[in-house]
Amino acid sequence: MAASTQGQVITCKAAVAWDANKPLVIEDVQVAPPQAGEVRIKILSTALCHTDYYTWSGKDPEGLFPCILGHEAAGIVESVGEGVTDLQPGDHVIPCYQAECKDCKMCKSGKTNLCGKVRAATGVGLMMNDRKSRFSVNGKPIYHFMGTSTFSQYTVVHDVSVAKINPQAPLDKVCLLGCGVSTGLGAVWNTAKVEAGSVVAVFGLGTVGLAVAEGAKSAGASRIIGIDIDSKKFDVAKNFGVTEFVNPKDHDKPIQQVIVDLTDGGVDYSFECIGNVSIMRAALECCHKGWGTSVIVGVAASGQEIATRPFQLVTGRVWKGTAFGGFKSRSQVPWLVEKYMNKEIKVDEYITHNMNLSDINKAFDLLHEGGCLRCVLAMEH
Amino acid sequence: MAASTQGQVITCKAAVAWDANKPLVIEDVQVAPPQAGEVRIKILSTALCHTDYYTWSGKDPEGLFPCILGHEAAGIVESVGEGVTDLQPGDHVIPCYQAECKDCKMCKSGKTNLCGKVRAATGVGLMMNDRKSRFSVNGKPIYHFMGTSTFSQYTVVHDVSVAKINPQAPLDKVCLLGCGVSTGLGAVWNTAKVEAGSVVAVFGLGTVGLAVAEGAKSAGASRIIGIDIDSKKFDVAKNFGVTEFVNPKDHDKPIQQVIVDLTDGGVDYSFECIGNVSIMRAALECCHKGWGTSVIVGVAASGQEIATRPFQLVTGRVWKGTAFGGFKSRSQVPWLVEKYMNKEIKVDEYITHNMNLSDINKAFDLLHEGGCLRCVLAMEH
Repeated sequence: MAASTQGQVITCKAAVAWDANKPLVIEDVQVAPPQAGEVRIKILSTALCHTDYYTWSGKDPEGLFPCILGHEAAGIVESVGEGVTDLQPGDHVIPCYQAECKDCKMCKSGKTNLCGKVRAATGVGLMMNDRKSRFSVNGKPIYHFMGTSTFSQYTVVHDVSVAKINPQAPLDKVCLLGCGVSTGLGAVWNTAKVEAGSVVAVFGLGTVGLAVAEGAKSAGASRIIGIDIDSKKFDVAKNFGVTEFVNPKDHDKPIQQVIVDLTDGGVDYSFECIGNVSIMRAALECCHKGWGTSVIVGVAASGQEIATRPFQLVTGRVWKGTAFGGFKSRSQVPWLVEKYMNKEIKVDEYITHNMNLSDINKAFDLLHEGGCLRCVLAMEH
Repeated sequence: MAASTQGQVITCKAAVAWDANKPLVIEDVQVAPPQAGEVRIKILSTALCHTDYYTWSGKDPEGLFPCILGHEAAGIVESVGEGVTDLQPGDHVIPCYQAECKDCKMCKSGKTNLCGKVRAATGVGLMMNDRKSRFSVNGKPIYHFMGTSTFSQYTVVHDVSVAKINPQAPLDKVCLLGCGVSTGLGAVWNTAKVEAGSVVAVFGLGTVGLAVAEGAKSAGASRIIGIDIDSKKFDVAKNFGVTEFVNPKDHDKPIQQVIVDLTDGGVDYSFECIGNVSIMRAALECCHKGWGTSVIVGVAASGQEIATRPFQLVTGRVWKGTAFGGFKSRSQVPWLVEKYMNKEIKVDEYITHNMNLSDINKAFDLLHEGGCLRCVLAMEH
């Protein structure tokens, strides 16, 4: 198959977001061959994430339309562009919205996963080589999204954004390691570095929050307090390691005070997995004086700000954030896949729904139902 | 001398703040003997610090009047109360506003210097044993301040707040290790943990800011950028390790952007040594994406808040604070004194003025002159 399409434009199905807040349309999309430093991937499975929804909704001021959304997926390399030597057709891969070039100032620092190599292009929906899109519909260019655009049967990504994984791994499962699950685990392991015996608070029990709980459990946390306004989530959350549940609606006091009272002065680590700036403040302020560390994992709407009294920090609390859980994508996503294969981390348990690409609008609706964690779409090749 | 006053009320001179924003008055003050767990100290030298001024000004909502201010001093133990075994009359000491009991949850954690043992009393200007003051003027109680009240020829403090130091150390110099100099050094060494080669920004070039610069230099920082609105401070700052000077008044752009432009994306570490919440934001936002860490050292006015976009943290910046530079007072102040005796840290260089206790109101005025770092008062025994 690779031989027959290599170097050719591929016409395939993709869900196009023609405009903000309008239903996605399954279109016949032309996908140009990969240029230098690029890889064309046959996407087999993609999940939906709230960031896709956020941009689709029009609230993301950097959102560009028309575009092809999607960033949590897995597939097989169809062909590679000039100069790409570490990937070849047939490789099983996870496209990563966070690149890892191993060569820029950020990668070389060893201190961060925030590679900047292709950001200038991916930030504006294009590819670095010619600052153009590889997608078009009847000659009209369609923007890329997050450098991944996985709501398409074929996509083109930068080679520095492709993690080559164990070919035995089920792509309809490990696609989740492209975003939510990895983000939650990494927030605990890489950013907070939770130690055994720690008391942990997790605000928001969606996929990312549950992955935080799972990461905290594996790190040996002694108490994992889940906070959510939907009490129905507690039963599921128990399976991921949450030991106690607090619904802010059950209390008159501010939630940070409730947590401080529950924990003899506050938690050792807290994680905000919602994207709400008021909760980010609560998450900081429920930390123990002297050492409590709060990690912002959720993505707030544009323009919103976090605030607190500086006394909170002067008395020893630490405020941090994380993107993709601090994981270096090309180096560490394959390692996460191995951990899944060895049954050291959950993935299947986050998948509550399976649908087809053509049902994508229904899948978007599901994101707002309490019972949905991840919906994985088959790409209907 | 110890024998003659032990167990007796001592009448001595002290500068009493009868009310907010009113000149201090040198009064004959009665200082009661130390009770269980307390130590009475003959203060030989005290410096003035902006926190004294802040409370005196009436802006500190927790300020209590009448009180005896002062918290950066050195002296000799006059007598000890019941159960005090590790101090005795004649010991040279630095009273510390931050206690270290080595027994509470905070001390035992090993993660913080914020001992909570006597806070409930020192926070309300009293002593733990009977929740009363040891100071009075003609029978009228005078509140303690920060558990130290060093603007008095004799003061009573909790034993957990007393650092016993090398008796060879000059008390009129090492008194500065009771607050400002230690705070700046510790912010770098303990809180930020600046590594060799780091690029550092210091906002505010008073005593604390200069001590930050000194600490950064000793940690091997490659660039130390001093930021102050008084350009006259640069000549002095050079002697403490500042390598570049930026006056925000010389620039139209926000100061964080000026620093980012100067440093190829931002500094590795920044320190706010002013107490201005807008500058705290600038200090965070001038940090490098991916790893830049900002430490709040200055004390903001009550009720003020810091703010930023959460994106600043999600993209890898860390926001911290420090109190007394993270130093464990009883354990580490003696070590700092040794470092001074070995000429490994500066102290003399911060002392720009020497006066007598009776000149304390003039000394307060000096705090607001650019040329004054620390004014040390002799206690006129």
